[in-house]
Amino acid sequence: MARKKAPPLKKTAKRKATGRATAESMAKRQREISVSEFFTKNRHLLGFDNPRKALLTAIKEAVDNSLDACEEAGIPPDVRVELVVVKKDQRYRLVVEDNGPGIVRAQVPKIFGQLLYGSKFHSLKQSRGQQGIGISAAGMYGQLTTGKPVVITSRTGPRRPALEFHVSIDTAKNRPEVSKEREVEWDVRHGTRVEIELEGRYQRGKQSIDEYLRQTSIANPHVTIRYVAPDGESLTFERVTKELPAETTEIKPHPYGVELGLLIKMLKDTGARTLSAFLKQDFSRVGPKVAKEICANAGLTEKARPSRIARQEADNLIAAIRDTKIMAPPADCIVPIGGELLEASLKQQVPDAAFYTSSTRSPAVYRGNPFQVEVAIAYGGELQADDLARVFRFANRVPLLYQPGACLITRSIVGTDWKNYGLQQARGALPTGPLVVLAHVASVWVPFTSESKEAIADYPEIQKELKLAIQECGRRLRIFVNRRKREADAAKKKSYIEQYIPHIGQALQDILDLSDRSRDQAVTKLRDILERSRKM
Amino acid sequence: MARKKAPPLKKTAKRKATGRATAESMAKRQREISVSEFFTKNRHLLGFDNPRKALLTAIKEAVDNSLDACEEAGIPPDVRVELVVVKKDQRYRLVVEDNGPGIVRAQVPKIFGQLLYGSKFHSLKQSRGQQGIGISAAGMYGQLTTGKPVVITSRTGPRRPALEFHVSIDTAKNRPEVSKEREVEWDVRHGTRVEIELEGRYQRGKQSIDEYLRQTSIANPHVTIRYVAPDGESLTFERVTKELPAETTEIKPHPYGVELGLLIKMLKDTGARTLSAFLKQDFSRVGPKVAKEICANAGLTEKARPSRIARQEADNLIAAIRDTKIMAPPADCIVPIGGELLEASLKQQVPDAAFYTSSTRSPAVYRGNPFQVEVAIAYGGELQADDLARVFRFANRVPLLYQPGACLITRSIVGTDWKNYGLQQARGALPTGPLVVLAHVASVWVPFTSESKEAIADYPEIQKELKLAIQECGRRLRIFVNRRKREADAAKKKSYIEQYIPHIGQALQDILDLSDRSRDQAVTKLRDILERSRKM
Repeated sequence: MARKKAPPLKKTAKRKATGRATAESMAKRQREISVSEFFTKNRHLLGFDNPRKALLTAIKEAVDNSLDACEEAGIPPDVRVELVVVKKDQRYRLVVEDNGPGIVRAQVPKIFGQLLYGSKFHSLKQSRGQQGIGISAAGMYGQLTTGKPVVITSRTGPRRPALEFHVSIDTAKNRPEVSKEREVEWDVRHGTRVEIELEGRYQRGKQSIDEYLRQTSIANPHVTIRYVAPDGESLTFERVTKELPAETTEIKPHPYGVELGLLIKMLKDTGARTLSAFLKQDFSRVGPKVAKEICANAGLTEKARPSRIARQEADNLIAAIRDTKIMAPPADCIVPIGGELLEASLKQQVPDAAFYTSSTRSPAVYRGNPFQVEVAIAYGGELQADDLARVFRFANRVPLLYQPGACLITRSIVGTDWKNYGLQQARGALPTGPLVVLAHVASVWVPFTSESKEAIADYPEIQKELKLAIQECGRRLRIFVNRRKREADAAKKKSYIEQYIPHIGQALQDILDLSDRSRDQAVTKLRDILERSRKM
Repeated sequence: MARKKAPPLKKTAKRKATGRATAESMAKRQREISVSEFFTKNRHLLGFDNPRKALLTAIKEAVDNSLDACEEAGIPPDVRVELVVVKKDQRYRLVVEDNGPGIVRAQVPKIFGQLLYGSKFHSLKQSRGQQGIGISAAGMYGQLTTGKPVVITSRTGPRRPALEFHVSIDTAKNRPEVSKEREVEWDVRHGTRVEIELEGRYQRGKQSIDEYLRQTSIANPHVTIRYVAPDGESLTFERVTKELPAETTEIKPHPYGVELGLLIKMLKDTGARTLSAFLKQDFSRVGPKVAKEICANAGLTEKARPSRIARQEADNLIAAIRDTKIMAPPADCIVPIGGELLEASLKQQVPDAAFYTSSTRSPAVYRGNPFQVEVAIAYGGELQADDLARVFRFANRVPLLYQPGACLITRSIVGTDWKNYGLQQARGALPTGPLVVLAHVASVWVPFTSESKEAIADYPEIQKELKLAIQECGRRLRIFVNRRKREADAAKKKSYIEQYIPHIGQALQDILDLSDRSRDQAVTKLRDILERSRKM
């Protein structure tokens, strides 16, 4: 097909007259874009690309918030999820209710009616939410597709009133609008209930809500989830333990992760009055000795006023930090699931495999952010032998169901040479065989490839840890596979022996004219010799 | 390994005292997050995950802007890209200069010092930039890693002064800060020059700046790019044609793409005084007849005041739109590269293949946005036969070098059954063979998987068009592969004939005692018969 042709260039003058732009005409079209407008147009970035995924994403954001809030308040989470049909295959109302600490009145509108508002963005601590986008985005999608506001009910204690709010977003300004606020009767001591009406499509199976809740319960054994599906069927995932995961501690930035621009900003904003105090107070792992060393390496006095440090001096400071040996950041800001529990979880998911193993790596750091990787695998048994391996991905205990191809976890599995571990694998593909791989990345800041938090971005430090964990599991798998192979060979040999020896006995009897007894003796001896050779 | 254990639950009270949160303590930590802070922390979303990619992304954003501005102004683009070493393998200064229309004084700070500011976001028209993020993000990354502002020089006409600006971003507020503004001598009639100092690493090869510029030149044959690499080596990609691509027209939203929330907002904002006028003025492809039909289907009068339409009525309007037959949106808002040029481009990239073909689909629509897909393939010849197929991806004439695994184009190729076309392919992998696939998606709004615009998101309508284009190329490939196979078979047969017939002739002569002449006759006849059977 021929290319559409533009008129030749000499006609430029005429074209200009008919509408080609100038600097002035272009300037008139320049405008500010509100965050909400941006994400309305780009709603696939938030996980709202299609009606089926939209339902899942909205539920996921609400459940993430409930679990984070309960854990922060030290309450074993009880979460109830209900999906009500408004118009089948077109419109649903989702209800997510928790027994968390509730939300104080003044915060409700902003949390649900403003994108980029939250408590977790500025803290370095492992949590499910981190961006201050999720739940308000779900509300915005509901509003966009059904015109209805989000309805929030919240109570912060048994002697306080339960309040109900109807909240929308003014997308041009990214600001909340409260259309109704009132006291209501609500029979819970404390908690939050969120209702969103939205366009959606409900479907069971892979990437479904059921699957998401099942995987969530497996990675969070301290959580009880009650789920009422649109057909009225209800499902309960009971907690296995009342023990909450260890409480995580918020940490300060590690000096190795800080960049010049950020350092300049921190120097300007700090309350510390000397450079040395600034380094000790505003960073993790900097004591008097390290602070002294950094100052000396940078050629700066410890008593320098932070606000007076010039750009070039800050640059020297960065170089000095990189030249100074500083302890890795503390790891109590992250809590892995743990090898034992991870294996147990995998057994729940895939009960019929023949072999399970797991590997939990030590905490490591990317761009100053602590993170930790765990991998578990299941192999053999009743698993399909001629399929590609199945992969379960988790980040900060949240199952990732979409965008496997974009995820560092998938890439790390594909990039591992599984032939080394006795499996088949085509170039650029997952290994083929009865294999399931589960991987969990926990971090104070998981670098996702988009705001929808469906896949982990490509940081070499994280990839390295994933590979090491996969390889450790792989090596154990190879031992198992090899032993199985040897056993299979031996069994084959044994069956030959058992099949042929009686015939040999018969033949010997005929040739040598043996008695039945001599024949049986010969057969027994022969069997012994062959059995021994088999064992060698 | 054992899981880190939390203290048992009865200690909750104590834990609370030692720091577990309440609704009130949580409320105190809630904060607004500025867009710039968000993207500083998430800079991998913008394509700044590592120093090598950061250099490429920054250049790409500047070149995209230059090409868009020149084309809009009807000027064949002359772009100069220079990369200067500040500190080898650590810090570079990039300079991108164009002969575009320039930028008026008042707009410079916001364009370069504010995220989410631009002219293309609110218009439905094919362009490289669309989000109002790219170039200010590049500046922000420079500032973050080197502390230096972006330096912009711009002149809007030969009789106007050239102005130089030093612009930074106040990341806490997402607002520009101009530290210097002055008139300078600049020997160009009109144009813009952008200088950014940033942390980076320069490397040739795959995913390099050289590769990006080469692919850009191939998809934009009307562009001249001069490039000076950090080692001083310079490279020029001359334009092949002075003809600009056909000018694209801005369109209004198509009714099929509008959702309830947006419709309600449009009804509130419109200048039209009747519903019928609103439908005709604010949408594309709605004439008097269609407007009448929509109103009738919705049970609304044509004279209804748009601002008075209630939510439920708007909902009926949406249903009515979906029930009304409306022409597809006009396609002159998008310009494909064109089959001929696409094949020529591919030949330039891969000159030694044996077979080339291409397919340009008709324009189609996703979520109301027109788009068009083109695919070209090269096969055989000198291409590596035992490698996975190579893929070149383009969106709105911009080469996509990163995140192939996240991209719908890759997924569409992997999802095609290439065995049908005579190639080998493992499950879940690209086909193996001497194959190169080039695909281009052009749209008024390309749905990227993240702000870095590296991969196309998963819209079923786009996937369908990609698959159809790939299949069309595949079918032609099959004919070629089959013919080649038949020819190879025939050649083999022929070589047998030529090898054995003289011997048969000799044998016949011996057995039947023939003369040399009779023998030669017999051989000729035999050859004829066998040749004929070969052709059948």
